[in-house]
Amino acid sequence: MNFGLVARVLGNLLLIEGAVLTIPVGISLYFGERGAVIGFLLSMGVLGLTGLFLSNVPAKSPRLKAREAIAIVTLGWVIVSFFAALPMVLSGAVPSFVDAFFEAVSGLTTTGATVLTQVEALPKGVLFWRSLLHWLGGMGILVLTLAILPTLGVVGFQVFKAESPGPTPDKFTPRIAATSKILYTIYTALTALMVVAVRATGVPWLESFILAFGAVGTGGFTPFNDSIMGWSSNRPLMVVLAASMLLAGVNFALYYDLLKGRWKQVWSNSELRLYLGITLAAVLAISLNLYGRVYGTIGETVRQAWFQVSSVMTTTGYSSADFDLWPSFSKGILFALMFIGGSAGSTSGSVKVVRLLVTAKVVKREIAHVLHPQAARPVIVNGRVMSSDVVHGVVSFLLLYIAVFALGSLVISLEGVDLISAMSATAATLGNVGVGFGAVGPRAGFAGLSAASKLFLSFLMLLGRLELFPLLAVLSPNFWRE
Amino acid sequence: MNFGLVARVLGNLLLIEGAVLTIPVGISLYFGERGAVIGFLLSMGVLGLTGLFLSNVPAKSPRLKAREAIAIVTLGWVIVSFFAALPMVLSGAVPSFVDAFFEAVSGLTTTGATVLTQVEALPKGVLFWRSLLHWLGGMGILVLTLAILPTLGVVGFQVFKAESPGPTPDKFTPRIAATSKILYTIYTALTALMVVAVRATGVPWLESFILAFGAVGTGGFTPFNDSIMGWSSNRPLMVVLAASMLLAGVNFALYYDLLKGRWKQVWSNSELRLYLGITLAAVLAISLNLYGRVYGTIGETVRQAWFQVSSVMTTTGYSSADFDLWPSFSKGILFALMFIGGSAGSTSGSVKVVRLLVTAKVVKREIAHVLHPQAARPVIVNGRVMSSDVVHGVVSFLLLYIAVFALGSLVISLEGVDLISAMSATAATLGNVGVGFGAVGPRAGFAGLSAASKLFLSFLMLLGRLELFPLLAVLSPNFWRE
Repeated sequence: MNFGLVARVLGNLLLIEGAVLTIPVGISLYFGERGAVIGFLLSMGVLGLTGLFLSNVPAKSPRLKAREAIAIVTLGWVIVSFFAALPMVLSGAVPSFVDAFFEAVSGLTTTGATVLTQVEALPKGVLFWRSLLHWLGGMGILVLTLAILPTLGVVGFQVFKAESPGPTPDKFTPRIAATSKILYTIYTALTALMVVAVRATGVPWLESFILAFGAVGTGGFTPFNDSIMGWSSNRPLMVVLAASMLLAGVNFALYYDLLKGRWKQVWSNSELRLYLGITLAAVLAISLNLYGRVYGTIGETVRQAWFQVSSVMTTTGYSSADFDLWPSFSKGILFALMFIGGSAGSTSGSVKVVRLLVTAKVVKREIAHVLHPQAARPVIVNGRVMSSDVVHGVVSFLLLYIAVFALGSLVISLEGVDLISAMSATAATLGNVGVGFGAVGPRAGFAGLSAASKLFLSFLMLLGRLELFPLLAVLSPNFWRE
Repeated sequence: MNFGLVARVLGNLLLIEGAVLTIPVGISLYFGERGAVIGFLLSMGVLGLTGLFLSNVPAKSPRLKAREAIAIVTLGWVIVSFFAALPMVLSGAVPSFVDAFFEAVSGLTTTGATVLTQVEALPKGVLFWRSLLHWLGGMGILVLTLAILPTLGVVGFQVFKAESPGPTPDKFTPRIAATSKILYTIYTALTALMVVAVRATGVPWLESFILAFGAVGTGGFTPFNDSIMGWSSNRPLMVVLAASMLLAGVNFALYYDLLKGRWKQVWSNSELRLYLGITLAAVLAISLNLYGRVYGTIGETVRQAWFQVSSVMTTTGYSSADFDLWPSFSKGILFALMFIGGSAGSTSGSVKVVRLLVTAKVVKREIAHVLHPQAARPVIVNGRVMSSDVVHGVVSFLLLYIAVFALGSLVISLEGVDLISAMSATAATLGNVGVGFGAVGPRAGFAGLSAASKLFLSFLMLLGRLELFPLLAVLSPNFWRE
């Protein structure tokens, strides 16, 4: 393990984080938030010093190997979260460090679960910083899942590369850099589009940025105390946000294909079709369940159903209604969607549609196997035969995900909340959704949990965001030997 | 498909069922239950006529092939359940046929879920018949999973054969017969032992038989309205039943090994060790959660924890306490146990320990794969390398199980019950446990559900009991072609 190189890269990451803080400083200066400005400046100082120190650690060799890259990604997410919590504490906006850390992890993992009850009372700069973390985290996850993990050969992630965007040189460092550049550009353009669209519905500029960051990063932090519920009568905003979330749940490699004019290829993408199909089916089923029972008009019913489906399926977590009060069937569908998530190579969390697609084909093959034990059938997704390595990676991911969910739910059940609250708190953090049912429902948030549970759920957010395996590998002592 | 042969075997099965009905007839005669006697005799007539008709259908060839064997097993379970419901209806004991069918399926699949609220009001003959179904179903599942499925090469079931009991001739019909005979003997001996042990704790003879049938078959029907709660102060009975259930959840092939003096082999069996380990851990965790909070003494706490863990883990479903009132953590553990089940090759339902063992090793291998992408590691269980066919079969089973559970829960949520009730009703039927939480908790039973839900849950009981794949294969049109 080339510790020096890992430290250098992490140091540079912290220097960038410190530089990014100038944006919320500007906002706090503009709004005359003295405490926040001091908090931000102090944090920038700490970040600058730590960053400078780390980036000057001598490295054995400047060449990055797969193992070091995994260490950088996982440690990077944890360390950047840690320092992202600093300004919230130092500004006095969030007195408890555990709360601030939870909030920072929730931001960077694009979860959007909050332990704050008085969001509107936060300084604008802190509010903006919290949501900027969504945007940064969303970009980070695109680079991680579309550029870094498949290139490193982490098993199962080959499936994320629908069609390789960008050139493919031999060494993986330049390949990652080239792919990342394309992703940055698409991501930024899509964000700009969303900011403008949200602004056009009558939301003020600052709030427009915050809502767009939450949507494009499938995060879910809002600048309001009650998520989006207070704005639910603004129909254009509901439609813009529901559509934005849906767009953010699409594999970003497909946007590259679109730019290249490969319409047919995009339209025939099996994951995209299944993603849209599940969304449509869920909206339909929930609408049928709600119409005449919860909402009086078809328009209101479909709008609320579509918004919540988009939000939960893409693991954003905005709520335009307190869906905890909906009938069991609708709640059950939303609960199931928490375990699906958006497309691979999007900013969404959870299992992701392509993994379910592969899994469904594996199970279907097994049923056919009972009929014809001799026949060997390959698993084909998007016209490509999946190697058995990829299939094992995908299936193992799903099984591990379920195991972590079960154990996590048991841990949270020690809080004394009911089982659905415990299970949905776990699913909402592990899947980076950010909202659950009951004690962690749309109106409740995560404020009622103990500090221990908040730290545990922060770990689950990181575990889910980092696609389980890299983080677990880093936690194994063998990883650091050699 | 040799339809004639399938019909002949099914006909013989019905003739046997008719013959078995003489036992409850005798009991009803002894207790002077006139209505029940008439019901039983009428049913015997119908069974005899149908059986004779079917067993005289001409067959193309007398040789049984794999596909016909699967058809016989699955259709057999459905048809025998159908006719087992007849005496309950014809005796007037259970007026609704849907209720009687649910009860019969619940009996033969050794689920033990009941839609009857006044069990004690049933004629003794019907009460005995209902529990005799557990005993017959338990024997059926042993023969199915230890003799038929592995011999037919249904993928994944090779893992059930811990060590092959009995000789292994070439053709599979004699092999199945030889293995079955050994299983019958062990099963009957174990039942006799349990009847005597239960009787020794002061339970009357008839009730001792019923409780032993429920325990050895991991069924769960009791002759009482409140499961075993009314007897929970009888400590010897609690211990005898908890131990009996635990014994019934062991792979019956291991009892054969024990008889052959292979102590060391039994003790080193990884599934047995994990099975006992999970039981112990669950009892410990629940005891710590309950002590001082629900029960005052250590003895009472451990006894209640052990009984419920044995009952749920082995998918029996006896309850000596209303565990729906226990704290979330204890309920969560019981809920998780519903998805584990006992050992493969036992009478218990659900996923079974060996499948979790294989799955855990697959996932562990994948984490190691991140560290060493090149290294190929086989999955080893009980010192034997699992073929990739077996691994695929096992993993696919688990994934399909979870998918059916999720979809089933959504269907039941349409009843308007809360999500935990819907989920546990599905888990309790699919896993052949027989008891859940909330609306289907220990005191509630399944009486409150609609007829449609009862039929749907009956299907889930059969699906789970038949290990998913055979029944789904039979439901596919391709199965019947050729």
